[in-house]
Amino acid sequence: MGYLDSIKFPEDIGKLELEQLKVLAEEIRTFLIYKVSKTGGHLASNLGIVELTLAIHSNFNTNKDRIVWDVGHQSYVHKILTGRKADFDTLRKLGGLAGFPKTCESLHDCFNTGHSSTSISAALGIARARDIKKEDYSVMAVIGDGAMTGGMAYEALNDAGRLASNFIVVLNDNEMSIAQNVGGMSRYLSKLRTDPFYTKTKEDIDNFLDKMPNIGTKTRRAVRKLKSTVKYLITPGMFFEQLGYRYYGPVDGHNLDELNKALQAAKKIKGPVLIHVCTQKGKGYSYAEESPDRFHGIAPFEIETGETYGKRLPDYSEVFGEAVLEAAEKNNRVVAISAAMTKGTGLAKFSTTFPRRFFDVGIAEQHAVTSAAGMAINGIIPVVAIYSSFLQRAYDQLIHDVALQKLHVVIGVDRAGIVGEDGETHQGEFDISFLNHIPDFTIMAPADYYELREMVNYAINIHTGPIAIRYPRGRGKEIIKHEVPLVNGKGAVLKEGQDVCILAVGRMVETAFKVSEKLKEKGINAGVVSARFIKPLDVELITECANKYKNIVTMEENCVIGGFGSRVLDTLNRLDLKARILIKGLPEQFIPQGSREELIKKLKLDADSVTNDIIYMLENTKL
Amino acid sequence: MGYLDSIKFPEDIGKLELEQLKVLAEEIRTFLIYKVSKTGGHLASNLGIVELTLAIHSNFNTNKDRIVWDVGHQSYVHKILTGRKADFDTLRKLGGLAGFPKTCESLHDCFNTGHSSTSISAALGIARARDIKKEDYSVMAVIGDGAMTGGMAYEALNDAGRLASNFIVVLNDNEMSIAQNVGGMSRYLSKLRTDPFYTKTKEDIDNFLDKMPNIGTKTRRAVRKLKSTVKYLITPGMFFEQLGYRYYGPVDGHNLDELNKALQAAKKIKGPVLIHVCTQKGKGYSYAEESPDRFHGIAPFEIETGETYGKRLPDYSEVFGEAVLEAAEKNNRVVAISAAMTKGTGLAKFSTTFPRRFFDVGIAEQHAVTSAAGMAINGIIPVVAIYSSFLQRAYDQLIHDVALQKLHVVIGVDRAGIVGEDGETHQGEFDISFLNHIPDFTIMAPADYYELREMVNYAINIHTGPIAIRYPRGRGKEIIKHEVPLVNGKGAVLKEGQDVCILAVGRMVETAFKVSEKLKEKGINAGVVSARFIKPLDVELITECANKYKNIVTMEENCVIGGFGSRVLDTLNRLDLKARILIKGLPEQFIPQGSREELIKKLKLDADSVTNDIIYMLENTKL
Repeated sequence: MGYLDSIKFPEDIGKLELEQLKVLAEEIRTFLIYKVSKTGGHLASNLGIVELTLAIHSNFNTNKDRIVWDVGHQSYVHKILTGRKADFDTLRKLGGLAGFPKTCESLHDCFNTGHSSTSISAALGIARARDIKKEDYSVMAVIGDGAMTGGMAYEALNDAGRLASNFIVVLNDNEMSIAQNVGGMSRYLSKLRTDPFYTKTKEDIDNFLDKMPNIGTKTRRAVRKLKSTVKYLITPGMFFEQLGYRYYGPVDGHNLDELNKALQAAKKIKGPVLIHVCTQKGKGYSYAEESPDRFHGIAPFEIETGETYGKRLPDYSEVFGEAVLEAAEKNNRVVAISAAMTKGTGLAKFSTTFPRRFFDVGIAEQHAVTSAAGMAINGIIPVVAIYSSFLQRAYDQLIHDVALQKLHVVIGVDRAGIVGEDGETHQGEFDISFLNHIPDFTIMAPADYYELREMVNYAINIHTGPIAIRYPRGRGKEIIKHEVPLVNGKGAVLKEGQDVCILAVGRMVETAFKVSEKLKEKGINAGVVSARFIKPLDVELITECANKYKNIVTMEENCVIGGFGSRVLDTLNRLDLKARILIKGLPEQFIPQGSREELIKKLKLDADSVTNDIIYMLENTKL
Repeated sequence: MGYLDSIKFPEDIGKLELEQLKVLAEEIRTFLIYKVSKTGGHLASNLGIVELTLAIHSNFNTNKDRIVWDVGHQSYVHKILTGRKADFDTLRKLGGLAGFPKTCESLHDCFNTGHSSTSISAALGIARARDIKKEDYSVMAVIGDGAMTGGMAYEALNDAGRLASNFIVVLNDNEMSIAQNVGGMSRYLSKLRTDPFYTKTKEDIDNFLDKMPNIGTKTRRAVRKLKSTVKYLITPGMFFEQLGYRYYGPVDGHNLDELNKALQAAKKIKGPVLIHVCTQKGKGYSYAEESPDRFHGIAPFEIETGETYGKRLPDYSEVFGEAVLEAAEKNNRVVAISAAMTKGTGLAKFSTTFPRRFFDVGIAEQHAVTSAAGMAINGIIPVVAIYSSFLQRAYDQLIHDVALQKLHVVIGVDRAGIVGEDGETHQGEFDISFLNHIPDFTIMAPADYYELREMVNYAINIHTGPIAIRYPRGRGKEIIKHEVPLVNGKGAVLKEGQDVCILAVGRMVETAFKVSEKLKEKGINAGVVSARFIKPLDVELITECANKYKNIVTMEENCVIGGFGSRVLDTLNRLDLKARILIKGLPEQFIPQGSREELIKKLKLDADSVTNDIIYMLENTKL
């Protein structure tokens, strides 16, 4: 690691010659593969962007120039080059190096990212602020072709088209979102990359016109005019030119020389520039080159074999995907929609079994939901699976296009609750709070795989309006006795008690059972209920619990504000029921990275903390 | 109205000849101007789309073909032609004809709209459902160039580019959003409309090549190849072609003959087609042609003069805009951002006074918020004014880009609460509920103009993090004594009482005073508080109220779920304070069109209803 060890600050890159930089690139790859094999993390996108990141730091000075990394999971190389190499053992761990850019980590990170397609907006804001303050430096957004399928990237691209000062968009085109890319834009970029028409035709026409025999002055003038017209026409990237951008490309993203030339040229231009850089996801590590999808975000793995450790057990997403597939086998009106997360949401098998009834719409949550509404109004039953934190993007569409028309759209809210290592931007912290107040929406949460399968069946085959099922990241159990059939709006009493009743949402039922054990040791007899339905509330059950137990505890892996517990409290108040109630959930704060276990404990949602809180309530509050 | 009266069903249009249709178009314009002059409503966009709507109904059969009207305020002509002419006296009134498409009104409305840029998504969903069901009809989205600045339109355009069945996007290009249009796309469309290059060059090149002297076989082949290349290159609308669309246009949107030809051609194509239709907003009514912006949505007016009735008094939006302008005059780091609602949000004067510090970003709420975050991180203080129901679009950006980085972005939440005649899609029903759970966000609501000015000053000059001010549509008063200065997180006791304390949010303070008067007549002495801060809650004040009054009423013009009242209740519970509490707000339902007064009464948020509820609480519930 001769060269890599010499890079303490990004300025040090400038001291290396081109050939040395090429060696450095390989050293960085080795470092990335080694470190990520230990910690897990985003590998393929970072292997693909090594030369581009080196070239950016060679040509720009992030002490003053601002680089916004879209999504940000490809910022590892940038982190290595900006003084954070030593922290890579703590990557994505509690208190450790973040997997995304963080302004609090380094002055070289100018804007936090995590969700897709924000970089051009943020960079445009930064550039406009620069211009107002009459400062002078470059502002750049580095965005993947996948993120370009997100609408807000286009909103910003459109708005920035009129800028008169330096503004650089680097389109990192690796022909992928997280999985295969989709849509017209993707096809267009592919054409730019491969169609010789774009690179050859101009030359052909010029040659042809130059060789024209015996031309007079008038013709000569016409030829000149024609040549300039053709030049204008043949510009590749006309799409971007038409939005107001100077287009450079396609540039080989693994050729430092080409990259340097394009970046140098872009730096000098006043006005928006788009540099189209073609890279290979996973570059330099054969397993990642072959399966960039699998190596997008990966658990710790063995370098020699590319295999992760331990036996792969099914997780909530897979159980969900299987249940949807089963429903689709029985009913040919069932379709599934994913926003570039086919594998992540457990829909891979669905997508190959029913390719004509499966729609990956790109990183486009808004469109995913509204196109589902369009399908539903025309007699199809769409299941849309989106991660909780990304569903925030489609909040308006859930209200305006689905709920207002009472359409039978099934939303799979994946990764609801603590997701762990991806940190603040990815926690599924708010979905109950943002769905709870939408009229006519039904919201369910399964305590285990059994309930999840029942709920998928209920949502698709029995229910007829807007409905969401929230389930967590990772694995669950089948711990619970299920004599209680799934009935609309009804919770399931899983254990009768006497002193206090725990109404738990989803995975929290597991914890509720542990709490009940611990309370038993203290002589307290707790009942356990799987709420199943967050909305509509089981008012009858709440009334019974209030009357029988006089002490209620609610538990949910969602922000306490606007969540399940607050609605139970509201019900008690509205019905003038006298019972003590303790609301347990995620506190009103953004939740950092770390393992779920660590975080749950830190946030006092673990069995010990809840047990203590219940004992405190019973001993210290008035009824 | 000879022809117009003969149109009972859209099929009747087919019975008319072209010349008769032209007369019908003028009759429709006369009808529209007359009716909207009485009821108020969206005029300019409907005057512009008369011929296009006639042509659509001439060439398509909405008994089977599906037309999705983007935003939908331009659907009046469609409503006239589909059996709803007689209902126009009830337009936008309680229980009357909606100002937007409504599936419950007519089988000819296939999808409800209201917010911008949803039509292509919805239509694509409808088309995909059609294909799965193996049905055969056309599906069309009619979208304005303004709505094309919204990102989700692009998400859908991109996704639909690969469709293999009939799918028609009619781009109604009137060079406007609601006000002047912005961005690269707008400039591109304008080039298509006006640049002779696009229409002439192909002809020039063909002529030139044909006239070439003495060309041999080889040259002839080269010429042939060149001609086909040039043909490909010269296609106008290459932007859309590159996304996978067949482009037709530009078509004169007031020429029925041209429209018919384009629509007929599009109908036959398997695959996505985009028809670029150029129309004039306000066409046929001189005042609307001159000021399409003013006649976008207009109150009842005098046809002869184009003037609305009564004296224009300033409303909340204007008071907000003035206060922001004042702050900007004192601090050159203050900028304002609008998402195509410069006038509606009271920022017109700001936009002309500080054109370099004002940004209309198009109908692009997501980008508006994130670009503001970019400015804030670079030392500028952005004020973003967006209507409550449209801010739903930027929910994720408020969390992910603003709050997570604790950035000093000021959000003006305009039209918060009941908006009235625009109905379900436009009510500002949820903003407290969707902002309340976002960590580190401060939320304020002014009881009157005085408090609004104070809050704008506080938000810009004193506060340093994410902050929102929610204020209603329409006019307010300056009724309240303001000895109480504005202090962070503190409510203002405006009237001391004894028996019950009303904690009111924003405009509800007006009602609270009325309630207090009515209670007085019954011998009940009520205190009145302007909550001012919805978040952070004034826990001290709540504690005092609970201890002193033992009876608390909260009032807010927001959904009761996840709102202000529910957090006050939660505070009482958390602090184990014993007090009765009545939570008044908007019920858990979508709120239809009607005047605010009518709706408030219907929803039991008027002074009489609240007074009765308070008396009931005092008499019937246990403490």
